[in-house]
Amino acid sequence: MDVPEEQTTFEIGVVVPKRSVKAEDEAFDCVEVLVNEFKKVGLIVERVLGVADEFIKLAAPLETLGRAAAWLKIRKPTRIGMELQFEWEELKAFERQPDGSLFSWCERFHCYHHLIYGIENKSQSAVTLKCDGKELQWEVGEYLLQKLESKGIVKQVYPLHDEKKRKKLLRCWALHWWDFTNQPVDEIYSYFGTKIAVYFAFLGMYTRWLLFPAAFGLTLQIIDFGSSQLLVLPIFFVSVVLWAIMFSQFWKRKNSALLARWKISYSMEADLGYKLLGMEWSSLQSPVELIRKWGTDKKKEKEMFQRHEWLGWFMRFRNDALVILSIICLQLPFELAYAHTYEIMESDVMKFGLTAIYLFAIQYLTQVGGKVSVKLIKYENNENKEKRADSLVYKVFGLYFMQTYIGVFYHALLHRSFSTLRQVLIQRLLVSEVLQNLWENSLPYLKYSYRKYRIRSKKKREKESTGKIQFSSRVEKEYLKPSYSATIGEELEDGLFDDILELALQFGMIMMFASAFPLAFAFAILNNITEIRTDALKLLTMFKRPVPRAAATIGAWVNIFQFLTVMSICTNCALLAWLYDQEGKWKIEPGLAAILVMEHALLMIKFGFSRFVPEEPAWVRANRVKNATEAQNICSKQLLMSISRKKESDGIKEE
Amino acid sequence: MDVPEEQTTFEIGVVVPKRSVKAEDEAFDCVEVLVNEFKKVGLIVERVLGVADEFIKLAAPLETLGRAAAWLKIRKPTRIGMELQFEWEELKAFERQPDGSLFSWCERFHCYHHLIYGIENKSQSAVTLKCDGKELQWEVGEYLLQKLESKGIVKQVYPLHDEKKRKKLLRCWALHWWDFTNQPVDEIYSYFGTKIAVYFAFLGMYTRWLLFPAAFGLTLQIIDFGSSQLLVLPIFFVSVVLWAIMFSQFWKRKNSALLARWKISYSMEADLGYKLLGMEWSSLQSPVELIRKWGTDKKKEKEMFQRHEWLGWFMRFRNDALVILSIICLQLPFELAYAHTYEIMESDVMKFGLTAIYLFAIQYLTQVGGKVSVKLIKYENNENKEKRADSLVYKVFGLYFMQTYIGVFYHALLHRSFSTLRQVLIQRLLVSEVLQNLWENSLPYLKYSYRKYRIRSKKKREKESTGKIQFSSRVEKEYLKPSYSATIGEELEDGLFDDILELALQFGMIMMFASAFPLAFAFAILNNITEIRTDALKLLTMFKRPVPRAAATIGAWVNIFQFLTVMSICTNCALLAWLYDQEGKWKIEPGLAAILVMEHALLMIKFGFSRFVPEEPAWVRANRVKNATEAQNICSKQLLMSISRKKESDGIKEE
Repeated sequence: MDVPEEQTTFEIGVVVPKRSVKAEDEAFDCVEVLVNEFKKVGLIVERVLGVADEFIKLAAPLETLGRAAAWLKIRKPTRIGMELQFEWEELKAFERQPDGSLFSWCERFHCYHHLIYGIENKSQSAVTLKCDGKELQWEVGEYLLQKLESKGIVKQVYPLHDEKKRKKLLRCWALHWWDFTNQPVDEIYSYFGTKIAVYFAFLGMYTRWLLFPAAFGLTLQIIDFGSSQLLVLPIFFVSVVLWAIMFSQFWKRKNSALLARWKISYSMEADLGYKLLGMEWSSLQSPVELIRKWGTDKKKEKEMFQRHEWLGWFMRFRNDALVILSIICLQLPFELAYAHTYEIMESDVMKFGLTAIYLFAIQYLTQVGGKVSVKLIKYENNENKEKRADSLVYKVFGLYFMQTYIGVFYHALLHRSFSTLRQVLIQRLLVSEVLQNLWENSLPYLKYSYRKYRIRSKKKREKESTGKIQFSSRVEKEYLKPSYSATIGEELEDGLFDDILELALQFGMIMMFASAFPLAFAFAILNNITEIRTDALKLLTMFKRPVPRAAATIGAWVNIFQFLTVMSICTNCALLAWLYDQEGKWKIEPGLAAILVMEHALLMIKFGFSRFVPEEPAWVRANRVKNATEAQNICSKQLLMSISRKKESDGIKEE
Repeated sequence: MDVPEEQTTFEIGVVVPKRSVKAEDEAFDCVEVLVNEFKKVGLIVERVLGVADEFIKLAAPLETLGRAAAWLKIRKPTRIGMELQFEWEELKAFERQPDGSLFSWCERFHCYHHLIYGIENKSQSAVTLKCDGKELQWEVGEYLLQKLESKGIVKQVYPLHDEKKRKKLLRCWALHWWDFTNQPVDEIYSYFGTKIAVYFAFLGMYTRWLLFPAAFGLTLQIIDFGSSQLLVLPIFFVSVVLWAIMFSQFWKRKNSALLARWKISYSMEADLGYKLLGMEWSSLQSPVELIRKWGTDKKKEKEMFQRHEWLGWFMRFRNDALVILSIICLQLPFELAYAHTYEIMESDVMKFGLTAIYLFAIQYLTQVGGKVSVKLIKYENNENKEKRADSLVYKVFGLYFMQTYIGVFYHALLHRSFSTLRQVLIQRLLVSEVLQNLWENSLPYLKYSYRKYRIRSKKKREKESTGKIQFSSRVEKEYLKPSYSATIGEELEDGLFDDILELALQFGMIMMFASAFPLAFAFAILNNITEIRTDALKLLTMFKRPVPRAAATIGAWVNIFQFLTVMSICTNCALLAWLYDQEGKWKIEPGLAAILVMEHALLMIKFGFSRFVPEEPAWVRANRVKNATEAQNICSKQLLMSISRKKESDGIKEE
């Protein structure tokens, strides 16, 4: 069982510049000091000299990780299921990962981070460090790595690929095309952490479920139902909607089951916040003063919680209103103007030019939107990083939603013909997805090649060497690979944002126009089967190993899928009405239209309001969480001992 | 702090017939044996000779209750917030009720029940009991009270009113009219238990919140807006809907806050089932075999849970479909036939006769519906009694919904005039509510008087005494009072069912026709202010003290209120469309109507589906709950000791 930890797999890389160190300076060289400090905290260090930089590879024996975990008070599920603070002495009481290791990749990374960034000057006096002739003062109590990073000496700290596991995954996952939607989710989990594994599980399940509407849609396309054609479309639409409703609910169940298998105690309904990875509660940013004041004055505490909750609610409301308003007032006219100009232009060259300008503008706008959203979110009191990321996702998705669908709606309304709509859809679905896939997969490779090229040319200029420069060390190659980051900014989201966004936009496209173009589902299924493997390949070969994230679900995206389902009910009804009303007799009077709009708006508010105001006041929740935490802290040690003892006696019995 | 328990308040009454006991038989007389057994288990017994029966009043000292609670393994919140099994030795570790007592009324009742019904023959041989000459064999291991109940010797076991508290409540609650919606909720909780207190808190909050739409409605009635009248109505409707949406969400928060105040750890979102009152988990009826098999085979266990869950889901679906179908196919035609016949009849006498027949039939139908529903529910695997009660509430409410509103709809559609609709509404709201209130309050008194009368006349016949027979003992008077029971059957619901039903039907009436009759809210507020006091009076004076129920919320009713809100959005839109479309130009073509109906049906399914299929599979949930319980069991004793010790040292410090 302990085997996987016994091997030293280097998991973290630190990049420092190549220096010429004189022998007498060696004791003061900042990199030497850093390496010594790494060794002191119990890490295993390997140094690699690359072409342009020097690399420090770090591994941690189980005990080092364990001590760090105990210091960080990481909560881990024990054999009796309860989560308790990790204690190195009571090792046996804790559940192991499905692959037999004690810590998950996410926990390991958290420990590494603590070990590396926790190195401080504990001596009585400042230490003088030298680097390429320059001198630094490492003051008492200062953290070494932060210091070196701020001075530009440590260029980057990044997780390293585990070559053995990577190759295995490459073989049994990324290149295993004939598995279609089957994936080794457990291994993905132990290699990439929860969030990425959950994404791939979602992608797999979504693709599997797509089989039904794809087959139905294909049947509709192939068989000519003659006069009953008009009856078949509503049936298709209704069954697709039912399918989508069931899918989102069953995905939630699947997600729960996955988390149970991975021993992550996270209740889907009652997201207690502190439970996530067991370290969230302590990092809960909400009213710091409150936490300090706990146990002093109950009444004041309650009042403060209430004030804090209401303020947060108000800020969130304001931000959302701002985003929605700016989308409607700024983006909508822009998109409509583009669609309209494109429509009335005659020359193809002009059209091409316009599209180029549009694409450029859109790229820029999206980034601005992302940045503004990130700024807005800073003023919300979301509980943890994942909640903030969710808030960002909602806001940015609004942007993409408008951008993707408004053009289609415009075409649909302008031409009022199903065949044009179908053409637009085919164009969007096929062309854009193929292009996007190509782009997505070639861009990182291009970036990687460009970086290699730049280093080579720089070296050549310096040394004027004639031979070809080979990047022989794996750690350097990985350093040159781009990191898995989102196009909207790296602060809160990583590359998963783009991957899931693509999926959500596709889902919206096929669902919202389902009755206009049933074949879309078949396109989607083909695309997704490709997507599984190309995304896998991308993650395993094109990028640095991503930093693991604590989130246990795909977060806000489930809600976005549900929102798109609701939207699709409305749009498809409109499409059907328009399809059957060939003669234009069903005129909808403005009065009726106004009332229908009002009704729909109210229904949306009715079903959306409970998301805004939680059912449990913040102070009740805080009390509950505080109590649970306190209780667990009290009994932690005693419990652990009794579990370990129980396990040992069980072991004796088995023997 | 300990004072309230030191007084012996008799809380349980046992009714046995008057017997003539010979001196030599006294040791074998069944009542004497029963009383001795009561004394043996530590209960305090007082015997009262009534006019027709003999009464045994029971009280329990704190220690007796505590021992019973420990035996029952009742979970109680401790000072650190965690719920742990009660231990008599670690008394100090547990939280006290807001009124200072250790056990809540519901817990006390549970303990009494265990003490009284747990008396079994533990000796080696059967005991011969005599009762009025007849002989009984109390076999080894047989429970005494069940035996005596089955033989008709113990006529009833019922909770007794606590005269001191009752009088206090009468003074500061039932007769305190000028408080309007203010009520001493904490005291109601400690006297009647959670469910009734929650009902009154709900009634109070609902009435307070009604002030806003009532004032708005009244303004609309009084001020003539002239030409803008047609604009004001939609504004009124929208604000009323928003009001209702906010009300239901804020009620949930209020409920959470109340439970936190009463130290009931019940998370609104994650109803863990076992948490309710701390004894639900053990009484969880779901697969008994599974519970036995736990820890044997994980895979099989999971499969069984899944099968059980799906079967349960299927049964619930089948039952609901059956109920809905029978309401539509059987009740709807009946109601329409009545409304139509009433409409076309000309003679008033005939109308009166028809209404009488209708009322009689309806009474009968409702009871049949209730019974059928109870039978259907037996085949569902609802987790606990309160879940079963909720399931019953949904089914029976369907019946009442149809019965109450179909007539109004019929009138509205037939006459197509707002003034007729308003008349019907006034009639229903005023007449029916006044009548119902009168009926509700006089019926129990009539029942009580009739019982007294019967006993008196029987006594007179027997003894031919001439003096008036006085019922002097309080316990006998209470015995003669009717119990607080529901009209649809006593199995799952008590009288609260009727009280909340009345409220829900009123809410539906005022909401669904809000834009036709804004004044309705003002009528409702008047009615509810009366309702608070009359319901209080009813509970305190007309009925036996109700058996406390474990439910911590008003359960299914919140969902019914929300459903009515959604319905009101649709009906009001229809009403508005009809109001503004005076010329009948907005003809809705059948095609458009079909599409709109389909859309609404799909939206309902979308938002209702998640209620059917939970997000967390049963086996995941079961594992979680099992783990939590196991962990608490392991650490229970250790934790309790450390909490007590902590408290003692705190106490020393304070001194």
